[in-house]
Amino acid sequence: MATQQYDVLGIGNAIVDVIARAEDDFLVKHAMQKGGMALIDEDRAQGIYAAMGPSTQISGGSAANTIVGAASLGARAAFVGKVKDDELGKHFAHDIRAAGVAFETKAAHGGPSTARCYIMVTPDGERTMNTYLGAAQNLTPEDIHADAIGAAAITYLEGYLWDPPLAKEAFRKAADLAHAASRKVALTLSDSFCVDRYRAEFLDLIRKGMVDIVFANESELHSLYQTSDFATAAAQLSQDAKLAVVTRSEKGCVVVSRQGVEAIPAHPIKEMIDATGAGDLFAAGFLVGHARGQDNKTAARLGALAAAEVIQHIGARPQTPLRALAKQHGLAS
Amino acid sequence: MATQQYDVLGIGNAIVDVIARAEDDFLVKHAMQKGGMALIDEDRAQGIYAAMGPSTQISGGSAANTIVGAASLGARAAFVGKVKDDELGKHFAHDIRAAGVAFETKAAHGGPSTARCYIMVTPDGERTMNTYLGAAQNLTPEDIHADAIGAAAITYLEGYLWDPPLAKEAFRKAADLAHAASRKVALTLSDSFCVDRYRAEFLDLIRKGMVDIVFANESELHSLYQTSDFATAAAQLSQDAKLAVVTRSEKGCVVVSRQGVEAIPAHPIKEMIDATGAGDLFAAGFLVGHARGQDNKTAARLGALAAAEVIQHIGARPQTPLRALAKQHGLAS
Repeated sequence: MATQQYDVLGIGNAIVDVIARAEDDFLVKHAMQKGGMALIDEDRAQGIYAAMGPSTQISGGSAANTIVGAASLGARAAFVGKVKDDELGKHFAHDIRAAGVAFETKAAHGGPSTARCYIMVTPDGERTMNTYLGAAQNLTPEDIHADAIGAAAITYLEGYLWDPPLAKEAFRKAADLAHAASRKVALTLSDSFCVDRYRAEFLDLIRKGMVDIVFANESELHSLYQTSDFATAAAQLSQDAKLAVVTRSEKGCVVVSRQGVEAIPAHPIKEMIDATGAGDLFAAGFLVGHARGQDNKTAARLGALAAAEVIQHIGARPQTPLRALAKQHGLAS
Repeated sequence: MATQQYDVLGIGNAIVDVIARAEDDFLVKHAMQKGGMALIDEDRAQGIYAAMGPSTQISGGSAANTIVGAASLGARAAFVGKVKDDELGKHFAHDIRAAGVAFETKAAHGGPSTARCYIMVTPDGERTMNTYLGAAQNLTPEDIHADAIGAAAITYLEGYLWDPPLAKEAFRKAADLAHAASRKVALTLSDSFCVDRYRAEFLDLIRKGMVDIVFANESELHSLYQTSDFATAAAQLSQDAKLAVVTRSEKGCVVVSRQGVEAIPAHPIKEMIDATGAGDLFAAGFLVGHARGQDNKTAARLGALAAAEVIQHIGARPQTPLRALAKQHGLAS
C-alpha cells in the first residue's frame, strides 16, 4: 500500500460562488426552485447576474467546501477539480491553496470560463443555486492520478460530477483506483434534482459497493427511493449501503449502517444566516472523524459542529479555524 | 437652483475589497501598520495576495460604501468613481447599481486594472488595508458633471481622493460646483496616514469653508491637529469647521459645531466581526439624517445604527436593508 499522504481527497466541480440576498418573490419571478440547484447556460447566467442584488464572491463548489472544511479541522487534504486560467480560476486556486489544501489539477487554457454558482439567500437563510459549469465540464479521467488517490485514506466524490459529460468517467476511475489501493470511497448525493437525474446509476454504485460511505439529506434520500416516508427510505438505505449518514437540518442527522439507525442531534446555533455549505461542512467533520478512527457518533458530532459554524455567516467555507472550535467542544485533541 | 434629484452624491476611489482573516503575526511579518491604509504597487499587491489566506471579494471603496449605505437607508444616491472595464470593474458596477445607486462614470478601456484593497481582519475584528489604486487613478475633472452635482443636496468626498494625482482637481471642481448650486459639501478625512500626507491642504479646505460637514475618527482628528489630547483637538475643530462629527468606536461619537460639543453613544452590538466600513456607514446614516432635516443627535444615532450593522459581518456594505432597521429603532418613517 502507498504511503498515506492525505486523510481526504475530494473530487468535484471547481466553482466560485456569487452570493446575494433575495426575497422569495425574486425566486418566483425568475422561475427558481427554492433550495435546489439548477444547471444554467451562459445566457441565463448573464440574465440572473443582471437581475440579482449586490453580491459577495467566495470560492465554493460542494466537494471543495468539504475539503477546505477538512483542512480547517486539521486533516491533510487534497482537491481535484477543473478551473480555467482566468481571474476567477486564479481566485479559486488561491483560496483553496491558502486554506492548506493540495490542489494540482491543471487549469484549462482555452474553452469556457471558470464555473460560477449564482446563489440567492432568502430571508429564512435558505439558499437557491444556479450553476454555470463552464470549465468544470472539462474534468476528465486524465486529471485523476493513481498516486494521489492511492495516498488518500478516503476519496470523496460529489454526485454533481454526474452532470459534466466526462467527469463521471473520472469519478469511476478514482473509485476503482481507491479500492485497488485498499482505500475508502465516499459519495454525497449532492441534490434531490441531481438524484432524480441519475437515480439508477447512484443506486447501482451504492449496491455494487463502489461507494463505502454515502452522505444524503432527507430530500435526496426521498428522491433516491421515491418515497416521502423517512423510515421506509432509511430502512432501504440500511440494506443498500455499508455506511450512510442522512442530514436532517435542525433535526440533526441519522447514521445508517447494517447495525441499525442512530440519531445524533444538530449543534445549537444563534441564527441561521446562510444555509450554503451546511451539508458540505457536515461531511467534512464526519469524514475527518472517520479517518481518525472515531466512532460514528463522535464523527457525526464533529460534522454537526462544522455545519453549525458555516450556516451562521454568508459563504460556504469556514470563517473560524474549525480545529480550535472542535477542541473547545472536546471533539479533537 | 436645479431640481434636487439626489440626497447624496459621493465621489471616491472605486475599489473591490479582497478580505481575509489574519493573525497579528502576519501584519508584523509583512510590515503592515495595524488599523491603517497603505498604498501599494502592483508587485506588492501580488506578494500580499500570494501570502494571504482564503478571501472574500466584495465591492468596497470608502465613499462608495457610504453611498450604498445611504441608498439602503432609502435615500436617493449617486456615485462617481473610476473602474476599468475588466471583470472586477464589472463586478463593482453591478454591485453599486444593484444597491440602487446611480453610477454613470465611464469605465477606462485601457491602463491599469480596477483598484483592489487587500484587507486583513485580525481576531479582534480590526482591519488593516493595502490599496492598489489602479484604474481609480484615472478619475479626472472631466468625470465631474455640473448637472449631477447641482442635483444633489450633499456632495460627499473622501480624503483618499488626494492620493490619485488628478482626483484632487476633480474634488475641487465638485466642491465649487456644489456651492455654486447652493448645495452642501461633506468630507471624510479617511485615514490618519492620509491626513498626515495632506494635513495643510485639508485644514485649508476646512478653514476656507470649501467643506460644510467634516467626518473624522479620533486618530484622524489627532493627526489633523498633531495632538494626542482629544479635548484640545475637538476645541480646535469647533473653531475651524462649521459642523463636524468625530467617531470614537465603542465610545460613540461627538458632534462638534460652533454651538459646542455633543456626545452620542454607540449602538450596542453582539460581537465585532470586521470593523471595515464602520466609519463609512456612520457617515451614511448621518448624511441621510442631515439631508432629511433631522437634528444632529438623531442623525448621529442613525449613523451609529448603520455602523453597528456593518461591523457585525465581513465586508463594508450592509447585509440587512438599513431602512427597515432604522424603522425598527424609531429613526425613520
